[in-house]
Amino acid sequence: MSITGKQIIGYGLSQQGSREFHGINASTGEVVGPIFYEATTDEVDAAFTLAKSAFSTYRKISDLDRAQFLMAIIDEINAIGDELIQTACAESGLPEARITGERGRTTGQIKAFADFISNDQWRKEIHDPALPDRQPLPKPDLFQKQIPLGPSVIFGASNFPLAFSVAGGDTMSALAAGCPVVFKAHPAHPNTCELIGTAIQKAAQKTHMPEGVFSMIHATSHEIGGYLVTHPITQAVGFTGSYRGGKALYDLAVRRPQPIPVYAEMGSINPVVLLSEKIKLAGEALADGLSQSVCMGVGQFCTNPGLLILLKSDEGFLDLVASRLNTMPLGTFLTKGIKEAYANGTKSLANHTGVQQLTSSDLPSPALFKISAKEAMNHPEVLEEVFGPSTLAIVAEDMEEMIAFIDSLPGQLTATIQGEKSELSKSSDLIEALTQKVGRILLNGFPTGVEVSGAMVHGGPFPSTTDSRSTSVGTQAIYRFTRPVCFQNFSSELIP
Amino acid sequence: MSITGKQIIGYGLSQQGSREFHGINASTGEVVGPIFYEATTDEVDAAFTLAKSAFSTYRKISDLDRAQFLMAIIDEINAIGDELIQTACAESGLPEARITGERGRTTGQIKAFADFISNDQWRKEIHDPALPDRQPLPKPDLFQKQIPLGPSVIFGASNFPLAFSVAGGDTMSALAAGCPVVFKAHPAHPNTCELIGTAIQKAAQKTHMPEGVFSMIHATSHEIGGYLVTHPITQAVGFTGSYRGGKALYDLAVRRPQPIPVYAEMGSINPVVLLSEKIKLAGEALADGLSQSVCMGVGQFCTNPGLLILLKSDEGFLDLVASRLNTMPLGTFLTKGIKEAYANGTKSLANHTGVQQLTSSDLPSPALFKISAKEAMNHPEVLEEVFGPSTLAIVAEDMEEMIAFIDSLPGQLTATIQGEKSELSKSSDLIEALTQKVGRILLNGFPTGVEVSGAMVHGGPFPSTTDSRSTSVGTQAIYRFTRPVCFQNFSSELIP
Repeated sequence: MSITGKQIIGYGLSQQGSREFHGINASTGEVVGPIFYEATTDEVDAAFTLAKSAFSTYRKISDLDRAQFLMAIIDEINAIGDELIQTACAESGLPEARITGERGRTTGQIKAFADFISNDQWRKEIHDPALPDRQPLPKPDLFQKQIPLGPSVIFGASNFPLAFSVAGGDTMSALAAGCPVVFKAHPAHPNTCELIGTAIQKAAQKTHMPEGVFSMIHATSHEIGGYLVTHPITQAVGFTGSYRGGKALYDLAVRRPQPIPVYAEMGSINPVVLLSEKIKLAGEALADGLSQSVCMGVGQFCTNPGLLILLKSDEGFLDLVASRLNTMPLGTFLTKGIKEAYANGTKSLANHTGVQQLTSSDLPSPALFKISAKEAMNHPEVLEEVFGPSTLAIVAEDMEEMIAFIDSLPGQLTATIQGEKSELSKSSDLIEALTQKVGRILLNGFPTGVEVSGAMVHGGPFPSTTDSRSTSVGTQAIYRFTRPVCFQNFSSELIP
Repeated sequence: MSITGKQIIGYGLSQQGSREFHGINASTGEVVGPIFYEATTDEVDAAFTLAKSAFSTYRKISDLDRAQFLMAIIDEINAIGDELIQTACAESGLPEARITGERGRTTGQIKAFADFISNDQWRKEIHDPALPDRQPLPKPDLFQKQIPLGPSVIFGASNFPLAFSVAGGDTMSALAAGCPVVFKAHPAHPNTCELIGTAIQKAAQKTHMPEGVFSMIHATSHEIGGYLVTHPITQAVGFTGSYRGGKALYDLAVRRPQPIPVYAEMGSINPVVLLSEKIKLAGEALADGLSQSVCMGVGQFCTNPGLLILLKSDEGFLDLVASRLNTMPLGTFLTKGIKEAYANGTKSLANHTGVQQLTSSDLPSPALFKISAKEAMNHPEVLEEVFGPSTLAIVAEDMEEMIAFIDSLPGQLTATIQGEKSELSKSSDLIEALTQKVGRILLNGFPTGVEVSGAMVHGGPFPSTTDSRSTSVGTQAIYRFTRPVCFQNFSSELIP
C-alpha cells in the first residue's frame, strides 16, 4: 500500500500545510516512509464539518449496521498483511511477536464492540409503564435509553501502536456508540497510523457509512491538539498518554464555553504489595514474574509495576529481584524522547537522598531502587512515574506504616497484592486501602496485560485518569460516549 | 421542636461564627425563627474531618443497613408533623397543599432509593469467569462492581424546600451510594433546613451510622460555598440552582489540584412545540394546560415551559394562551431577589426590539411574549431564562425554520411536542432535533411535574447541567456518586 503522508478527511486525502515531519525507525533512527504533513486548522475544520454532517445520519444507523462497519474494519486491517507488522515494528521498536499479538488484540477488541452493540441491551433501556389511574396524579409512560454524545476526538498513544491507536479501544468505543471520530495520529508511528486509518476509511465506504464518520489528522504541535479539543463541534475527548498531555487537554476542555468530557488515561505507577508468606514460599517465582512484568514492552505499559511495597523484615527479597533485573536487556524505546526521559528519570532517582539503587548495571538499564516508607511520604516526588523498566521498592516498618503509605498515594490504574491465602484473609484493611486508590485490584498476578472484557476497568482515580467513573478498556468503555435520554409518553414507533 | 440556628456537625451543633442572618417569611417579609449563624471554615473543616472518618466505616456498611438508615429518615421527617409544613410554607410562600404534596414526594423518593439499594443489582456487578486453559494466555477471573466516590457536598435549591433540599434527591442518592454528605443549607429556608437536618441527624444516630455521615452548614456568602467545593476531602458535588451559581462551582471544581465531578442542574427554558392539528382540535384544553404549567409554583420550576414554538399560520392560538394568563394571579415568589429578577427580566423582554407582549396585565404578572424565529436566532439573549411565570413564543415561517431554530438552541432539561397522531408520524426530523437538545422529551404533556422513577432523566446537555451523562431525579441518580472497580482473581470473601 502506498503511504501518502496526508490527512484523511472523510473519503478524501488532504495536504494543505507545509510543516513536515517523518516516521522514524525506533531502533536505527532512520526515516520510515514519506514526508508527513501537519494538518492546518482549515483541514481540521473540514474534518469537523464532515463529522457534524455524518453524525446526523450515523446516529440513526442501526446497531447491526454499525456492527457490520466495525467488522469490515477488521477485514481491512487483516488485509494489510505483513506491511502493517513491519511498519509498526519499525516505528515502535517493538518485536514482531508483540506486534502480531497486538494486532490480534486490536481486532479482537473491535469484534467485542461489534458483538456488544449487536445486543439491544447495550442501550440500557429502562421502561416504567404508565399508571393512568394512579392517585392523585396519573403516572406517565417513561422510557430511557442511551444515545451518542456527538463527534469525538481521539488521541492515540505511542506505546500500543495498534491497540491504543487509530483502531484502538477509544476510537472503537466512540464509533460503536454512534459518534463520528476525528483521530489525532501519534507522530511516533505516522506510517502505521495511515495504514490503519486507510483501512477504516475503506471499511466505512464499503459499508456505506456517511462521509466524515472517520477522519485522521497528523500533527506534532500542541496547537493542533488544542484546536481539536476546543473545536465547538467536538463533544467528547479520549486520550491515552502522559499526565502533562492529558491534563493540558482536560484544562482546555473544561474551560470551553460548552465544557465537554475528557477521558484521559494518564498513567500510573501501579503499586504491588508483597506479603511475607508469599515471599517465603514462592520468592523465586515471584522475582521472575516481577522482573518480567517490569521489563515487558521495555517497561512502557500504563500498568507497569513501578512501585513495590513490602515490610522491612522482607527487604532481603529485593536483592533477588535486583539480580533478575541485572540480567535483563534494556531493549529499544519507542522514541528518542522516551529513551532520554528514562535515562534522566532513573539517574535523578538514583541521586535522590534516601533512595538506594539495588540493581548493579550502569544506568540507563532495568532498575530497582528502594526507599523507606517514611522517606517516601516526606518526598512524594520520588513517586513520579519513570516511564520504562524501573521500579521503586517502598520499605515499611510494619503493616500500619504500609497502610499509611498507601493512604498517602495518588490515584492509580491498578494495585496488586501478592500473598498466601492465610495472610490475605487477615488483610482486609490493606485490600480496602488499595481499593480506594485504584480502578483495578489484582491478587497474585501482575498488572501488565489488560484483559479486554466486560468486567475490566482500565481507569482509576485522578491523576491516573481524569474521570474515575469510566474505563478505557473493555466494552463498558462505550458509555464514555453516550448519555441517557428519557422519552415520556412516546409510542415506540416515534422514538428515534 | 426548638430551632437553634447552628451548624449540624456530625452528632453535635456548632456556632463559632458571628455573621448572622434570618429566615424570612416569603409572603410578609417578617423574620421566621431564631438568628442563624454562617459557618466558619473551622466548622467546615470539622464537618469534613468527621465525614472522612465516617466514610471509612460507612462505605463498608451493608446495603440493607444503609437502606434502614434512609427509612429511618422518613420516620423522623414524618415525626416533625405540622411544624415542618408551616415552616416550609412560611419560608417559601408556597401553599400548604403544595408543601404537603412535596413532603410525600420527598419521603417517596427516599423510599425509592432505600428499595433500590436493597436489591444487589444496583451495584451493576459484571463477572467474567476465568478461562485458565485459554491460549496463548489464560484469562483471569474479573469482577466489576460500583463503589462510592467519597464525601460529597450537596447544595440545596430554593424552589423545592423539601424535595430538592436537605433530604432531597441529591443528598439521598449520595447517602444511598455510601457517600457521607456535607449539606449546604439554602438561606431562603434555613428553619426548614434545620428541621430536616435534625431529622437526618437523629435517624443516623438511631440506626448507628458513623458520626459525620451527615453534616449541615449554613452560609449566605459565596466564600463558604467555594470552600466546600475546593476542600480536599470533597469527592463530588451536587447542586440545583442558577446557571451562575452552578457554573461558578463547576469552575472551582475542575481547577482543583484533584478535579472532581460536579453535577449542577442549572435550569432550562424547556421548549414546547405546538403543532397545527393539535391547536386546531384541542386548542382550548391546550391553552388551559399551558397556562397552568407556566404558572405552576409561580413559574419557579426548573422544567417551567419558558418557550413555545409554533408556525406563523397558528399564531392566533397565542391570543388564547394570553387570555388565560391574563386571568392568573402572579402568586408569592420564593424570595425578594427572585421577585425583583422576575420584574426586571419581563420588563427587559417587553422592551426588546422584535419582542411583543401578548398578555395585557401590567408587569410583573404572568406573561406571554412573542418573537419571530429569525429575530430570536439573531438575538439569542431573548432566550435567557426568566425565572417565574413568563413564556416566550417563537413564531416560525415553516417547519424548516422551526427545526433550524431548534438546532440553534442551547441544551435543555426537557422539550415537549404537542401534536396529533397524524402529524407526529410525519415529524421524525423535529423529534430527532429536539432529542439532541434535551435529557427528556415529552409527547402531549407538560414538562412540569418530574416523575421520580428509574427511567426518569432530569438532566441534559450543557448549559442545562454540567454533566449530560447523569440525572438528578430518579434512582439512576445514585451513579453520580459511584465508580467502577475491577477485582482480578479475587475469591468473593476477599472482596470488600
